[in-house]
Amino acid sequence: MPDRTVERRSTANDTAVRAMAGTDPVLTDVAAALDVLPGMTPSTILTSGAPLEWPQYTGGQRRAILGAAIYEGLASSVEEADRLLHEGKIRVRPCHDHACVGSVTGVTSASMPVWVVSDAGSGSRGHCLLYEGGDRQRLTYGVWNQKVHDRLVWIREVLAPQLSSALRSVGGVRVTPIVRRALGMGDDLHSRNTAATAVLFQQLFGPVLDANGPGSATRDVLAFLSQNDLFFLHVGMATAKCIADTAAGTPHSSIVTAMALSEKEFAIRVAGTGDRWFRAELPELKAKLFEGITADDIAFMGGESLITETVGLGGLAAAAAFSLQDYSGGSPRHMIRTTEAMYGITHVEHPLWKIPYLEFRGVPFGIDAARVASTGVTPSIHMGAALREGGHAGAGLLIAPEQPFREAVAALSGTAQKA
Amino acid sequence: MPDRTVERRSTANDTAVRAMAGTDPVLTDVAAALDVLPGMTPSTILTSGAPLEWPQYTGGQRRAILGAAIYEGLASSVEEADRLLHEGKIRVRPCHDHACVGSVTGVTSASMPVWVVSDAGSGSRGHCLLYEGGDRQRLTYGVWNQKVHDRLVWIREVLAPQLSSALRSVGGVRVTPIVRRALGMGDDLHSRNTAATAVLFQQLFGPVLDANGPGSATRDVLAFLSQNDLFFLHVGMATAKCIADTAAGTPHSSIVTAMALSEKEFAIRVAGTGDRWFRAELPELKAKLFEGITADDIAFMGGESLITETVGLGGLAAAAAFSLQDYSGGSPRHMIRTTEAMYGITHVEHPLWKIPYLEFRGVPFGIDAARVASTGVTPSIHMGAALREGGHAGAGLLIAPEQPFREAVAALSGTAQKA
Repeated sequence: MPDRTVERRSTANDTAVRAMAGTDPVLTDVAAALDVLPGMTPSTILTSGAPLEWPQYTGGQRRAILGAAIYEGLASSVEEADRLLHEGKIRVRPCHDHACVGSVTGVTSASMPVWVVSDAGSGSRGHCLLYEGGDRQRLTYGVWNQKVHDRLVWIREVLAPQLSSALRSVGGVRVTPIVRRALGMGDDLHSRNTAATAVLFQQLFGPVLDANGPGSATRDVLAFLSQNDLFFLHVGMATAKCIADTAAGTPHSSIVTAMALSEKEFAIRVAGTGDRWFRAELPELKAKLFEGITADDIAFMGGESLITETVGLGGLAAAAAFSLQDYSGGSPRHMIRTTEAMYGITHVEHPLWKIPYLEFRGVPFGIDAARVASTGVTPSIHMGAALREGGHAGAGLLIAPEQPFREAVAALSGTAQKA
Repeated sequence: MPDRTVERRSTANDTAVRAMAGTDPVLTDVAAALDVLPGMTPSTILTSGAPLEWPQYTGGQRRAILGAAIYEGLASSVEEADRLLHEGKIRVRPCHDHACVGSVTGVTSASMPVWVVSDAGSGSRGHCLLYEGGDRQRLTYGVWNQKVHDRLVWIREVLAPQLSSALRSVGGVRVTPIVRRALGMGDDLHSRNTAATAVLFQQLFGPVLDANGPGSATRDVLAFLSQNDLFFLHVGMATAKCIADTAAGTPHSSIVTAMALSEKEFAIRVAGTGDRWFRAELPELKAKLFEGITADDIAFMGGESLITETVGLGGLAAAAAFSLQDYSGGSPRHMIRTTEAMYGITHVEHPLWKIPYLEFRGVPFGIDAARVASTGVTPSIHMGAALREGGHAGAGLLIAPEQPFREAVAALSGTAQKA
């Protein structure tokens, strides 16, 4: 590759990462997807990963999309929903094309409330559904039934309006300091959000109480916020999307702006090639499963929480979260090696997000697809595992496949040569 | 030393440590010192450390004792209080003799509210004043003025009754699970209580709200509970005292049941010699001081938060709290070495309190004075530093002097030979 290309890429990557590191994401609101997601329509259903044709969705994503169609009143039966999806009258679109990211199946429909995270400087916005609760059975995990329906209604009718009024009353909550603090308290901000959830609660209980009064609905909301250790995850994901999108479209840059899973594929985007997906077969998930669950019981059903790794958290910050041994497995020694390896494929160290064990070295920040391609080291990702028939099954480590990073770099070089 | 003595001591230490590890301390109430501390009287003032004669108190402890005498209405001026103290009409006593521990000066008078931590199995109880807030100027740090007075009144009239009604309404809060969780979130539970405070808040906000209604006083209480990262420290201290006292008086045992500082001395107690203090000169505190403060500005003014080390937390759990680098200094490597050295002078590893970095090895538990004497390794203690003229100055590491451990072992052998 000519030196000029390498130099141009390096300068472009500086620009891309500077944009990402320079953001100050603020959690400003909770609002219906239809009201805040660009390009959203009443008959659009968003889902995780690079898009597939409707018939290609056969597992958890299919079940969740059909459930959402009924939830939105677009169809009155699974059969009708299936027909409308075949005919394109209900449109399935990737979350990432609508300033959004999805958890596991990632199914997000018009009336569902999403977190709104905004960066005033760049104008970037990221969104993500609210955490659905600790029950193993959730739409997130490909389950659709009356109980899932009822919880979604409670989230829409009670939780979301209360959070919205609370956030608006205080002009939003800055997320970077919460992430910083949580990294110092054993979170990786992907598989572990215990500290971030507790810190967010310390900041939100007052505004929730003031804005909504002390009634029983408010008490339910406060209990939900304080009792689910993963509650913060979706805030972190919306934040990561807000950050990553500030690099999207930077010409010639090989910085990764998205990593996502559908139930069939792993895919990435890099800054210099905008919305284009580079796809690969699903890698193996090395998971520690809940008791009584075996490898045969689990299946991929998508997921975009990998956006946290895209901004230096999750697997990239493994050395911050030794307590994950209990949840997803792995030894502290392995977690340290994981983070150390990630410095080899990232562009900088984050100026504010630090890892105590590494003497407050910043997390590896800005995955460079060119470095992945040249070293063969790929991102280490902390992932939840899903049961084939729906439900949360455990968590583990996913090593990204190399091929899409190589393809992205090749595509960038092609672009560069044409320029 | 005869084998029989060593064997008897080893069996006694098993008994002592089994009692300590077998406790299930519950935070049951907040009540006036006079109402709950055994042997407390209206004209008794408790303070930190092995007792001194009144004229020997010349620094922060003296100022705080005089302040407390006025606060309690025992005297109307500093001069009058001094005279009554000289005459013994106001009695100064060590906290430790009244099932209590004190923070820094440790000054605790009759009307001041204390945490009540109880272990139902053994009947042991530990107590400690409530945290006085983040202001550098506190009675805790040897400052007495109108602002300090007003905050003490708010603690007595508002904070304490609200916490009492909240704790009573839920039948108390178990402390061991909070400590366990906080160790997994980067606390050592002495110099760092950030996570424990957040976790306690998640458990207490509901009871506080339910028991006291949503008025502005309640909001002040909730704000106080959620905004002071060291708020949990005094709960942990009362808990540690409750635990340590289950070993006190175990014949022949060389397990340490108290380490304490007055402004003049370091002192310890071991299980086999009951209430007897073994004293030494103050060791050097290697502290990282707040900006603008130098070593000349600081002075010892007592402290019994070392009770946390006595039960395996604080410096003994240094490897759990890498974030302390920022606050009290030291590198992660040094923190790991510190904890590893402590396994050499402790009797067991705690069965529930684990350190993530050490692959969930239990904290070093039950300091054995005999091992300290034979190895020359003494407890590493995480300590706050105080300004000479009053106020919080920073934090650091204190290495306990060897002599009192040697003297305790000698005293035990004497006892053993007489038996």
